Order: sequence, then structure tokens, then C-alpha cells
Amino acid sequence: MISLEELQLAARNHGMPLEALRYPVTPVGLHYLLIHYDIPLVEAAGWRLAVGGLVERPLSLSLEEIRARPATELTVTMECAGNGRARLEPRPVSQPWLDEAVGTAVWTGTPLRLLLEEAGVLEDAVEVVFRGLDRGLEGGVEQSYERSLPVDLALGGEAVLAYEINGEPLPPQHGFPLRLVVPGWYGMTNVKWLAAIEVVDRPFTGHQQAVSYCLRTDEADEGIPLTRMLPRALMVPPGIPDFPTRRRTVPDGPVPLEGRAWSGWGPVESVEVSTDGGGTWRPAELDEPESQWAWHAWRYEWAARTGEYELRCRARDAAGNEQPLEPAWNLGGYANNAAQRVPVTVAG
Amino acid sequence: MISLEELQLAARNHGMPLEALRYPVTPVGLHYLLIHYDIPLVEAAGWRLAVGGLVERPLSLSLEEIRARPATELTVTMECAGNGRARLEPRPVSQPWLDEAVGTAVWTGTPLRLLLEEAGVLEDAVEVVFRGLDRGLEGGVEQSYERSLPVDLALGGEAVLAYEINGEPLPPQHGFPLRLVVPGWYGMTNVKWLAAIEVVDRPFTGHQQAVSYCLRTDEADEGIPLTRMLPRALMVPPGIPDFPTRRRTVPDGPVPLEGRAWSGWGPVESVEVSTDGGGTWRPAELDEPESQWAWHAWRYEWAARTGEYELRCRARDAAGNEQPLEPAWNLGGYANNAAQRVPVTVAG
Repeated sequence: MISLEELQLAARNHGMPLEALRYPVTPVGLHYLLIHYDIPLVEAAGWRLAVGGLVERPLSLSLEEIRARPATELTVTMECAGNGRARLEPRPVSQPWLDEAVGTAVWTGTPLRLLLEEAGVLEDAVEVVFRGLDRGLEGGVEQSYERSLPVDLALGGEAVLAYEINGEPLPPQHGFPLRLVVPGWYGMTNVKWLAAIEVVDRPFTGHQQAVSYCLRTDEADEGIPLTRMLPRALMVPPGIPDFPTRRRTVPDGPVPLEGRAWSGWGPVESVEVSTDGGGTWRPAELDEPESQWAWHAWRYEWAARTGEYELRCRARDAAGNEQPLEPAWNLGGYANNAAQRVPVTVAG
Repeated sequence: MISLEELQLAARNHGMPLEALRYPVTPVGLHYLLIHYDIPLVEAAGWRLAVGGLVERPLSLSLEEIRARPATELTVTMECAGNGRARLEPRPVSQPWLDEAVGTAVWTGTPLRLLLEEAGVLEDAVEVVFRGLDRGLEGGVEQSYERSLPVDLALGGEAVLAYEINGEPLPPQHGFPLRLVVPGWYGMTNVKWLAAIEVVDRPFTGHQQAVSYCLRTDEADEGIPLTRMLPRALMVPPGIPDFPTRRRTVPDGPVPLEGRAWSGWGPVESVEVSTDGGGTWRPAELDEPESQWAWHAWRYEWAARTGEYELRCRARDAAGNEQPLEPAWNLGGYANNAAQRVPVTVAG
């Protein structure tokens, strides 16, 4: 089913083991990771961030200079836009995520907005382009990893240039020494190993913006760029796993189900649970999140009787987005937020 | 090729991205991880380690009591016994590792030997069994993860009961609050989330000892238990990757190749590099390791000319073990230390 090339990606990148949904903040090393190319070797001493393009005062800042600026802390749930890809048929070939490409971290850094105000964004500005130090080939073309944001979001939003995760300096795999964090947006937005920020007067058309990370029906389709995360609820698979299959077994009786749910479009308004594969649904108890951009905890008590079950859960957000029961296919395999399925044996 | 069940394992467990061979000590989050069942939830406050069985004075120790005992620090290269499994044909179905199930960490803890001396091992003792808090099913049988060591190694060796990795408390995925670390042995030896140590008077025949982690030719074969790591050299794949295929491209000219090599059977005595797929071999420059149990750095300067190449490297240890060029198949897919292959395009 999965090719050697997909396995090469799966063996180095990794999701969050779903039992880690128990932690409100994901311990480093359990947060999902997608590294497009290689982790670049960056020495803090020689590194500088360039801020240029359509600005009055171009900047070149050391890590110490960035750390000396006003700091803010954001607790953010981040999900890969490709989460759920391996559940699509036919399967788009890229990182083969099942359900687990997510994590929540506390990011500390300086607000992007303040740095751009300091540089002085000129009137013609349309987008802000972020360039990482990671380099690779896409269809034979050598390039750096680059993504852009609309200038209004860059100047008006809560994006942070982060140098710490969970109170520690960024480890290499999370973008040392500095990365972008845009709360509510899919993971590809959050450029790691940041080298340069450039203000430009037209929409950016780089590979990761205009080719990858668009919803397309076929190659001819220009597509719709991915931005904010669609809602998703996930549960901690209950009971214990069989090693090779990871199928779950629980004893009969009351089984507390718990999980987390999030959306980039607004607060999660409801989480529902089905214990019959999606036939009938009951509301779960839902907590307020620890921050506007972090997932909500939820719980549901299942009165489990001997037999075979398929548990599911689904979230709806305040903007009216609800998780579908079946995947919606697209060429790149993005944004498949179909409700999770957890097969469980209840042993008498 | 890879099944959904194997993908479920690959998506949650992960190898060390090979560019991380550049670090003498692997940053947490990049060290390989194999979690057989689920990461158990352990609160330090309620946790105790039981030491019992054939001992004069059974012990029950809190984490603070263990931390108050003599501490030692060990830098250890640890590799999964299943590393290389996904290169075997037919492929044994389990965690589908390619080459990357390795990492090196600095473990801090109290010597196992001292704790056993404190408990007073009785004369009939043959093995010491270590039980983790992680539980799951193997062939329908519910069990804890358990492994044993010969009593001579437990009393005479350098094994550590570790509560820190790289100077920090163990994160959940590495066995918080306490794990076993047996330098030189394959990863399965190093029981995480340790709950109990029991001294026994006969060889332990639990699943992870007598069924898994044995070299077998077929189901009828009793097999040879896996113990120490066979030698392996790995290189940092040079140049830059293509995203979906991870194939490497380098410019022509001198290309510095570098990597690490290790063996659990003794020091690495030589690393050789081939740039023609294993036809001809040249010696690499080899460093002394930072500790007896840590990998050696090696380097080789390749005069790369335009064309297509397959780079390989292989190690030989002081005990005379040398990496084979082709995999040796076995039923469980263990200990495949065939020399790495890195296809590279040299662009003129």
C-alpha cells in the first residue's frame, strides 16, 4: 500500500502518539513534525534575520537583538495540512499521515507586527514572504522553503517570531534559532529556521504557496490555497493496544473517553461521540481552551458492553464548520478532517 | 508495499533524521523512539520502584530516594534491533525501519549494580527481570513489557537506572520517571517506565525475550536471542534532497562526507566508503568516541564528478564483526546491518 518513498518520509517525520492528547501542552518530542527538506545546521553566533523589501528601514537582527525586543507567549495547537492524507483513495503521494499530525506548544517570541512596524511597511505592500534556511528540490528546481502571509494579517494578527518552545530554546527540528508561528493556520505557514522576511507588492507564487498546499480537483485546477485549520476532534484510543495491529481492547463497564478538539476558524462549539461507527451521536462534555488558539479538552463516558465497536468523534466550530463522516478527496491530499475511527473490542 | 498496520506504527514511532548524525549527542525529539504499546501516564508522586524476588532485602523506592543514591552519567548510542527491517524481502511485518532507528544520549541515573547490591542478590539468582508500566496484547495475551538480563551482567556491568536524558528529566516518551539503560545492547533491553525489578532463578521466557527479539529462520526455530548491537556506519546524506523521493543532489567538486559508526561488541576499528555502490572501498578517517559506549565520528572527502552514484559505508569492530553488503533475512526482521545505500546525483 505505502511506497518506499512514502515510508522514507514517515520514518523521519512523525505524528503525535494519540495517548499524548492527555497533555494540554504537548511535550517536546511528541509534537508532530514535518521537515520538508533537511534540518539545516544553524549556529546562533553567525545567524541574522533580514527584514527587507518594501520597508522604510531594512533590518538585520541577531538572535540577541530579537530576544531583547518585547516578548509574548502563545499557546497554539498546530496541525499539518496533510493530516488524514493516508486515508484518501487513491492516495496522494506525500507524507502519509493518518490522524496524528498535531500538537500544542507554548511559543515565546516577539510579535511579528512590532518588527514590521519597526521596519515601516510601505503603502504598496501586498504580502510578506518568509524564507527558511532549509533547501531542497521540487520538480528539479532548487529552492528554499518559502511561504507568504497577506500584509493585513502580518500587521494585524497575532503571529509571533518564536525562539522558545515550552520555555526552552527551539530544538533544531522545530526551527532553531527562530521560526514563524501563525495561530490558527495549518502547519506549513509556520516557516522554520527563518532567514529573511521580505515585504512584496504582489501575491507570492513560490512552490509552497501556489503549487503545494492548494485544494485542487486535478492538475489543471488552479486550486484554493489552504489557510486556517478545519475543525477536528481526536480521542485517546481507550484501553490497551495489540502490538502489530494497534487494535484496542477494553473491559466492559464504564469507559471514560477523552480527547481534544480544535479549529482555526473559531472556538469549538460541540464535540459529539458515536459508539456505533457514526450511526448515532451523543454530545461530549467540552471545556474552554487554555488560550484562544489552543485545543479544547472533551470527555464522554461510554457504558461499554461486550462486543465489537467503532468509536468516532466529530467537532463543529463557531463558524459553522463541521467534520464530515467521509473524506473529501483532493489532488494533494490536504485537509482531510473526516471524523476519526477507533475500532475497539470490549472484552466481557 | 507497506501495510496500513505498519504505517500506524511508523506514524507514531520515528527514527533519527540522518542529518542529525552531525550531533555527537542527539537532541531530545530527534533520538529514535519505539513505543511497543502506549506511553503510560505516570505521576512521579505515586510512583515507586519495587526490587524483589531472590533478594535479602526487598526495596520499594520513590523517585526522590533513587535520585538521592550515587549517580553516574553514561553517553550511549542506542539502536533498535529492528533497524533495517523494511529493507528485507519478504518483509517481516512490524515497525518498518529503514536505516534511522538510532540515537545517542547522555543518561544520568544510579548504577543498577549498586541497587542490586543494596537489595542483596541471593545465590540461586540466574536472571534479573525488568517490568515496565506499558501494557498491551501479544497474540491475544495481555501483558506488561518485560525483559531480563543475566545476573552477571546486572551485577557486573555498567547498566544504569536512568532518570535524566541530556541533563533533563526523562520526557514521557523516553520512560519517565525511570528506565533501564544497558550500554551496547539493542534498544529493546532498555525497559522504559520501570515498575519492578525481580531477581529470578531461571531464564525468563516472557514474550519480548523468548518470542520477539530472537533470530529465527522459521516458526519452528527456537532462535538466538538478540543482545549486543552489531556494527553499523551511517552517513549524513550529502547535498540537498528532492522532497517526495528524498534523492540527493550535490554540485561537482570536493564533497565532504561524514557520519557516525558504532558497535556493541567493541570499538569500531575501521569505516570504509564506497562511491560505486560497493564495488571498491576506501578507508574513512575515524575518531575516538566521546565515551566507550558512544558512536565514533568519521569523515571522507569525495571528489565528486558529474553523474549518478550510489554511496555506501561500512564499519568493522574490534571483535571482527563487519557489516555485510546484503541483508541477512530472518523471521522477525532483526539486526539487518547491511551497509547503507545513498543514491546521489552529482550535477555539473
